[in-house]
Amino acid sequence: MSELPYGYFGPEGTFTHQALLTLPLPAAAPIPYPTVPSTLEAVREGKIAAGLVPIENSVEGGVSATLDNLCYGDPLVITREVLLPVSFDLFVRPGTALADVRRVITHPHAAAQCRGWLARELPLAELTEDGSTAAAAAEVARPDSPYDAAICARVAGELHGLTSVATGIGENPDAVTRFVLVSRPGPIAPPTGADKTTMVLFMRHDHPGALLELLEQFASRGVNLCRIESRPTKKSIGDYCFSVDAEGHIDDARVAEALMGLHRISARVVFLGSYPRADGVQPVVRGGTSNDAYREAADWLERLRRS
Amino acid sequence: MSELPYGYFGPEGTFTHQALLTLPLPAAAPIPYPTVPSTLEAVREGKIAAGLVPIENSVEGGVSATLDNLCYGDPLVITREVLLPVSFDLFVRPGTALADVRRVITHPHAAAQCRGWLARELPLAELTEDGSTAAAAAEVARPDSPYDAAICARVAGELHGLTSVATGIGENPDAVTRFVLVSRPGPIAPPTGADKTTMVLFMRHDHPGALLELLEQFASRGVNLCRIESRPTKKSIGDYCFSVDAEGHIDDARVAEALMGLHRISARVVFLGSYPRADGVQPVVRGGTSNDAYREAADWLERLRRS
Amino acid sequence: MSELPYGYFGPEGTFTHQALLTLPLPAAAPIPYPTVPSTLEAVREGKIAAGLVPIENSVEGGVSATLDNLCYGDPLVITREVLLPVSFDLFVRPGTALADVRRVITHPHAAAQCRGWLARELPLAELTEDGSTAAAAAEVARPDSPYDAAICARVAGELHGLTSVATGIGENPDAVTRFVLVSRPGPIAPPTGADKTTMVLFMRHDHPGALLELLEQFASRGVNLCRIESRPTKKSIGDYCFSVDAEGHIDDARVAEALMGLHRISARVVFLGSYPRADGVQPVVRGGTSNDAYREAADWLERLRRS
Amino acid sequence: MSELPYGYFGPEGTFTHQALLTLPLPAAAPIPYPTVPSTLEAVREGKIAAGLVPIENSVEGGVSATLDNLCYGDPLVITREVLLPVSFDLFVRPGTALADVRRVITHPHAAAQCRGWLARELPLAELTEDGSTAAAAAEVARPDSPYDAAICARVAGELHGLTSVATGIGENPDAVTRFVLVSRPGPIAPPTGADKTTMVLFMRHDHPGALLELLEQFASRGVNLCRIESRPTKKSIGDYCFSVDAEGHIDDARVAEALMGLHRISARVVFLGSYPRADGVQPVVRGGTSNDAYREAADWLERLRRS
Repeated sequence: MSELPYGYFGPEGTFTHQALLTLPLPAAAPIPYPTVPSTLEAVREGKIAAGLVPIENSVEGGVSATLDNLCYGDPLVITREVLLPVSFDLFVRPGTALADVRRVITHPHAAAQCRGWLARELPLAELTEDGSTAAAAAEVARPDSPYDAAICARVAGELHGLTSVATGIGENPDAVTRFVLVSRPGPIAPPTGADKTTMVLFMRHDHPGALLELLEQFASRGVNLCRIESRPTKKSIGDYCFSVDAEGHIDDARVAEALMGLHRISARVVFLGSYPRADGVQPVVRGGTSNDAYREAADWLERLRRS
Repeated sequence: MSELPYGYFGPEGTFTHQALLTLPLPAAAPIPYPTVPSTLEAVREGKIAAGLVPIENSVEGGVSATLDNLCYGDPLVITREVLLPVSFDLFVRPGTALADVRRVITHPHAAAQCRGWLARELPLAELTEDGSTAAAAAEVARPDSPYDAAICARVAGELHGLTSVATGIGENPDAVTRFVLVSRPGPIAPPTGADKTTMVLFMRHDHPGALLELLEQFASRGVNLCRIESRPTKKSIGDYCFSVDAEGHIDDARVAEALMGLHRISARVVFLGSYPRADGVQPVVRGGTSNDAYREAADWLERLRRS
Repeated sequence: MSELPYGYFGPEGTFTHQALLTLPLPAAAPIPYPTVPSTLEAVREGKIAAGLVPIENSVEGGVSATLDNLCYGDPLVITREVLLPVSFDLFVRPGTALADVRRVITHPHAAAQCRGWLARELPLAELTEDGSTAAAAAEVARPDSPYDAAICARVAGELHGLTSVATGIGENPDAVTRFVLVSRPGPIAPPTGADKTTMVLFMRHDHPGALLELLEQFASRGVNLCRIESRPTKKSIGDYCFSVDAEGHIDDARVAEALMGLHRISARVVFLGSYPRADGVQPVVRGGTSNDAYREAADWLERLRRS
Repeated sequence: MSELPYGYFGPEGTFTHQALLTLPLPAAAPIPYPTVPSTLEAVREGKIAAGLVPIENSVEGGVSATLDNLCYGDPLVITREVLLPVSFDLFVRPGTALADVRRVITHPHAAAQCRGWLARELPLAELTEDGSTAAAAAEVARPDSPYDAAICARVAGELHGLTSVATGIGENPDAVTRFVLVSRPGPIAPPTGADKTTMVLFMRHDHPGALLELLEQFASRGVNLCRIESRPTKKSIGDYCFSVDAEGHIDDARVAEALMGLHRISARVVFLGSYPRADGVQPVVRGGTSNDAYREAADWLERLRRS
């Protein structure tokens, strides 16, 4: 039986593409999709086994298109994550000098990271935002392009035959993007001991203290959070949901109890998967919150009831 | 097969006796015991089916002998509670006038409630404390007793042929004592919808915020407390345990989860029974904490794991 | 003495421009700036008295450029807010039919809101993102533009002589954008009774429960939050700060105490102003948190100390 | 000007007397009072400069008479505390052998601690409770006393010419009683760096979570508790107030803010003094809760307001 390929938020030459190549892949060549939603839709439709999309950047923050699509579409789950350092070059058509660059094109996230360098080195250059850094490179590669330079990953510049005239031009040399591999729901891989669980929490009524109550569901079970991000629910100003990464796996008793607690007090909990952490960091399991402690407490209760 | 009798903290004529008579009793006559510990020991030894002892008074607070014995001895559980209004009379031997009363005897709890009246009406009288109000009445009934009067329940005064020279002399006309019927552990009667669960909580380390953490185990499951009382653990000044009555029954999912949570983070949880409330007040079950909500959340989790 | 003009995130014809026109303005004509950072820099340099920039959209969420610039640059404060419904039209050069539209240009936030309509009505159209909806309209107005249509505000389409071929094409007819008027720090206008205070909170160590501790600083003083938004601190994945709008004014005792508490336990609190709420909603002041209650408690403490 | 003497809960020969002798005393001989209330009343009436009474025992718990009198009478404050190991002997009239002891008299607290020894060594002895261990010794010293032995402090036995037939008979060889020196309100001695503040807290409405809210007033300011004890308010079963010792001094900013917070959300806060700890233990002052941190935060707020 032939295996489905993976897909990714393309085009070829993006950081997402680079990130995908760090994973073990099916034999079939990976398929680029033009947008995050089209990548995830291809997963939902069963055209690809899984799709890789960016979810978070250490500089720009959450990737709204990913967060919102995972939250509101048909159920999908994250099965892997990839962390990739993000480094930008300024690529031009061969023959263009740095001093001649007037119009620069790139993706908004890259633009945000390179604005300081541009203001310093190319104060007169005009910056246009495009859908991806790879598309920007492709645009600049067109002989009649109105743009002189693209800010993009080295892989994209090289793919399109461009020349680098400046390297590492982002403000944050340590910038990292986090990508998630997304599949249709299926059996969840067992805990590795260093896992994350991702979910979106909608508050029942947006009353004062509601966020505090949600956080206490984690805290009272000793579950730490790695990420919390508010997103508008698109209903009205001031109505938020929260995208959360928690330490641990749905098969860890403390995580399971926290999930059930959240399910009970929230309007809605969207479970987005339990998967191994890319950094392999194991959680500090607080006293009384290990699986053994949970099992022991359940046995104790059972004995009380039966005594 | 012959049924075991009930016992109570006697002697005959105490409020505990009165309280016992409000319960459905086995055929065998109830047996008075001289102290709370001897009553509870008789339960442990299987000499009586159950023993009634005072646990709390609306004026004096917790009854230490009961709280400590339940906590530190072999396991016992509360199966019923009784609330009894407490009203005191001043009883004398027939012939003694109120104005002649010089030495008064009674139980310390009664003394505490009648001190104001004594200071006002019998400023010169000397007050001696005795083991029970009924014993005080018995003492005064002895012709050669050094005491002129006993503060006791009407039933005790009458039992011993004494005469009331003042009635309702307690400071708190609404004073109430709460009694508990205690048995050896056995099958727990099912929830009535208006139940209490009693326990003693020992903190793991007496660190700052430890009590807050215990209370959050209740709060995060929507379990309200009816009573919380600190008791020294007898180890050192500043080392306390907490005797707690919580709303609900061990078979209520929110109570069960709170108990397990407490068991996990405490040094020790002594379960002292789930039983119907004497006042029949039903708890307000907060959204998301009903048995249905718990069951639904468990089903949801199961579906996520299996999907 | 001549009064400085206001500035705004332009160009002319943007929603920001529209929002500015709802405010009382200085005599001098308002000045458009090409970006949020350049608008705010003009405020810092004293070229304009105040600048209006978008901070939040009910669909897209926070405006990163605004949140980050306010947080990391020289101190600025918000003195007013404006809420503006956001409605999009599809504008073309006169003579173009809807069916002929192949290339559409707009700002990413507008793109996000109109993707559904485009997928339905113009499935083959290619969407390009530009720096503003007004710039998109200007681009389409160029006779040799490669773009056939712009998604923009009516005011922008009309300004550039374009024709609307579809109206209200956003997914969220109730979409609202919130703008803030930003000045250099100066005397804070007194409370109106319906105020907001905006700040950014950096946690001291990103330890588990740190966000909970920050939220408790508000909760323990009865201060409700209207908005909380995580932003990466640009240091590493998983290091966040929180942009927060709280109900009340820095001159309200409960807000002042919460601010001081946050200042004490945070690595850094960036105060971004206290200003009247655009919706005029007055906070519910919980028992014991009014200015009178604070004053009374301070008097009580003073009496204890002096007694 | 002649200095007023100190008073204490007598009679001579009690542990309270012993505890008093550890303090620097006025020249005038200390005056014993027959009860805790009469000692404290003498302070209120200005007959004595201060009175020493027991407040807590590591075995028996709080001393109700002291806790209640301090809470409900005219204002008094604690200015010192004394910790005293409590060790009991069995004293008899000279000539009585241990084996002949049939009737034993002592104070209920001593009785509680020596019951185990009595049950073991004198199983047939009848135990009567009296107002103080010293009074018990005096009673036994009467030639025609019906009692054969008193359980009391060595000092009391010796004072009354009795003979010890057993020593250290309490169950808890490490038992300690804590005494407090109580005065009329006046200037509070400045902080020593190792201080305690005592208070009684009445909840506004006895709603679920009310105790949690009170505790959070301490926790949110980093103030640790040394003791918390529930006391019935004497209104009805289930209505409690809380007697609390907190680490720190009313002149410590974090304690002052917690006191004001409690005053604002409680029905009533009875302040019972700030005074040096007998054990000299200095509190761990959590980050951001020192006086310097408070002052710095107040300065910061002032700068924001004035900027």
